[in-house]
Amino acid sequence: MSERMSRRKVFGLGAAGVAAAGAGAIAARSLVQEPPVAHATTSDPFPFYGEHQAGIVTPAQDRLHFVAFDVTTGSRAELVDLLQEWTAAAARLTQGKEAGSFGAAGGSPEAAPDDTGEALGLPASGLTLTIGFGPSLFDRRFGLAARRPPALADLPKFPGERLIPELSGGDLCVQACAHDPQVAVHAIRNLARIGFGKVSVRWSQLGFGRTSSTSRAQVTPRNLMGFKDGTNNMKLEDAALLRDQLWAAAPDGADWMAGGTYLVTRKIRMTIETWDRTSLREQEEIFGRDKVKGAPVGKQNEFDPVDLAAMKPDAHVRLAHPSGHGNAHLLRRGYNYVDGSDGLGRLDAGLFFIAYQRDPRKQFVPIQMALARTDPLNEYIKHISSGLFACPPGVRDAGDYWGRGLFG
Amino acid sequence: MSERMSRRKVFGLGAAGVAAAGAGAIAARSLVQEPPVAHATTSDPFPFYGEHQAGIVTPAQDRLHFVAFDVTTGSRAELVDLLQEWTAAAARLTQGKEAGSFGAAGGSPEAAPDDTGEALGLPASGLTLTIGFGPSLFDRRFGLAARRPPALADLPKFPGERLIPELSGGDLCVQACAHDPQVAVHAIRNLARIGFGKVSVRWSQLGFGRTSSTSRAQVTPRNLMGFKDGTNNMKLEDAALLRDQLWAAAPDGADWMAGGTYLVTRKIRMTIETWDRTSLREQEEIFGRDKVKGAPVGKQNEFDPVDLAAMKPDAHVRLAHPSGHGNAHLLRRGYNYVDGSDGLGRLDAGLFFIAYQRDPRKQFVPIQMALARTDPLNEYIKHISSGLFACPPGVRDAGDYWGRGLFG
Ligand code: HEM
Ligand code: HEM
Repeated sequence: MSERMSRRKVFGLGAAGVAAAGAGAIAARSLVQEPPVAHATTSDPFPFYGEHQAGIVTPAQDRLHFVAFDVTTGSRAELVDLLQEWTAAAARLTQGKEAGSFGAAGGSPEAAPDDTGEALGLPASGLTLTIGFGPSLFDRRFGLAARRPPALADLPKFPGERLIPELSGGDLCVQACAHDPQVAVHAIRNLARIGFGKVSVRWSQLGFGRTSSTSRAQVTPRNLMGFKDGTNNMKLEDAALLRDQLWAAAPDGADWMAGGTYLVTRKIRMTIETWDRTSLREQEEIFGRDKVKGAPVGKQNEFDPVDLAAMKPDAHVRLAHPSGHGNAHLLRRGYNYVDGSDGLGRLDAGLFFIAYQRDPRKQFVPIQMALARTDPLNEYIKHISSGLFACPPGVRDAGDYWGRGLFG
Repeated sequence: MSERMSRRKVFGLGAAGVAAAGAGAIAARSLVQEPPVAHATTSDPFPFYGEHQAGIVTPAQDRLHFVAFDVTTGSRAELVDLLQEWTAAAARLTQGKEAGSFGAAGGSPEAAPDDTGEALGLPASGLTLTIGFGPSLFDRRFGLAARRPPALADLPKFPGERLIPELSGGDLCVQACAHDPQVAVHAIRNLARIGFGKVSVRWSQLGFGRTSSTSRAQVTPRNLMGFKDGTNNMKLEDAALLRDQLWAAAPDGADWMAGGTYLVTRKIRMTIETWDRTSLREQEEIFGRDKVKGAPVGKQNEFDPVDLAAMKPDAHVRLAHPSGHGNAHLLRRGYNYVDGSDGLGRLDAGLFFIAYQRDPRKQFVPIQMALARTDPLNEYIKHISSGLFACPPGVRDAGDYWGRGLFG
């Protein structure tokens, strides 16, 4: 069965047949260390099984659907069942298959289909599904308090933030990235459907365009301030840096997180109307890079090394630079969003910031503290939602499941 | 200068050079009757000038950003100025160029750029911009009351609708469709920026996937209920039907609308969680088509002619069929949306329904009245926003502008 097999092609098989064939095809490619650098076409699948979860160093796909769930069941066994069901569904969905049997192809017409159907006929579209566990999952409910990783420490309050509690936090999160938004939405919706009665959607966010590159093979995209975003990002080619600053290891204090990583999300609303009336010079000084090419102050080209001393002391790039924070890097993987308008005549738009790292206490927190204190960008942005999640290592094979190290 | 010239390529030219070259390139292709049936690549531009506005029979692009504006100036002259500025910007944007001069390429670095920049380097991506005038524009403010077309009659109240006034109506609307959402968002945002102080955004909607085909060359996409949507749509190949049922003509009662058409938008929230627990059989009976192939009841293939008598009397397709409404057709052009979640554990998702037609009184209204009364689909949907707009004919050339027939 070919890797490029689409949903349409597997559709004729009975559910059991699909599952068996799918597992075989996947097993042959399991334990791949890194996803391929250059993705053959935007419809191909990425491997689901591996040492690390996909969707982190995977070259950032174009579209995002991110969801945070509250666990509504009080039963640890039910939660573990759900994680197992989700893992099986994710293994299928990411390979371009349905979440489960569907109608005549395995189910009964008298039953609700095991897949909602809106992605029938669509290819895998580079879908990745990445799970994370929030701090609240480690409260008393599931007996996990002793297993909470030290790096999953609550974020401090940052100056100026205006977090909306209902749009923040969550016991679990799933990041769905794909080249086709219908495929990303379909995946999240089917996970929510499978979780009915055990979890409920706390908040969810669509991102329409990536604002970061996570591979040198990718063109740097632009954020809604019009600047190239992701130039000096940690990338999958930085093998030594990833080992050092992205992937957690057993000595970090939670052995079940070895090979995992920590995710911080921040929904950052932009007052783009004010930004759009700011002079080009001021815009460029604020970032410390030029708008057209993305070159750092005083340099010609986007990837020229930054000359921090040539920038204003409070330029965004200077404040965020690793050199000011004990060489702390982030793997940024954010998306542009527009949520309609705000009732005051303005678009409700901004950046859904996503960053992966080995220890937020040493990476996101000090960088964001510096930015929150002095970045002149703050005049044009407001952090309105925050999320923190421990993303466990990858699922090794069809016998493994999301979070087995934590619950097993 | 080639048609496939990207923003990046024109960037080096001064603003005047760009405008002149652009106008020449466009004029050569002006007055095209219909957009090309099959679009060469998803990055190519569609012609802006022509008898009809683009974005109507144009093969439906994948992404949508729709905006409704309130006019905040009381000055008719200022409004006309704005429509002229918008037309010039739209002629550029749809051809993959910036909205205006930008920084070193024509503007001063001490000024705010005439383009917000986030689409720099992106191709035209099939962008179309389509303007419409709402009933409220014809109130006392601009002396247009006598020119209100009879077909722009306020929609009646429909049973069961739960319209949110702030998400409904609008003096003006612009529909931006493109294959790249960044390009659609960029276009709307720049029109809003140009309109600063004269218009303000009333509501705006992102659609992530089309739910209709408007050309037989297109594959029928799926809505969020998982069904193929757009099979029996009016399509650009139906020349006689379009003449009859899509394009307004002078005898209809408003000569300035000849070559134009009327747009109805409805934001239709779906309770997808309930839908997902409904049996496949019931889902298929509700629509009168099968879920996998889209074939009508009793038939084998999607495009087989419908056998209404074989369907339940209240099947959606049967209720909506032209035969029940004096042969009334619609050109549907809707999009799937997800706006996050609703605070009750559910995704806030549905269909942003868009339909073009010659006279809503004879087309949308009777069809929707039948659906609102008896469609069993109503158990799973709720109309929460409504818009009605008169879309004037196309802009003929660089001397013409959106609405010249109305204001001129
Ligand atoms: C709306 C908010 C933000 C915008 C518009 C923004 C934009 C940018 C831009 C345009 C760059 C330069 C290109 C690049 O190297 O990627 C950049 C760099 C960077 N940003 Fe941000 N950023 C935002 C928020 C943040 C936040 C919240 C953090 C982390 C707390 C952050 C961390 C960084 C880092 C680490 C760099 C790279 C600096 C370097 O090493 O050169 N940014 N950002
Ligand atoms: C969420 C709401 C709706 C959903 C999910 C929906 C879905 C569908 C589907 C799946 C079809 C069959 C495929 C096709 O021919 O396109 C269809 C047909 C159709 N629908 Fe809807 N629809 C909705 C609302 C509406 C509304 C509000 C109208 C107009 C008032 C409408 C008018 C039509 C028409 C005219 C047809 C074609 C009937 C025929 O000639 O065979 N629909 N719709």
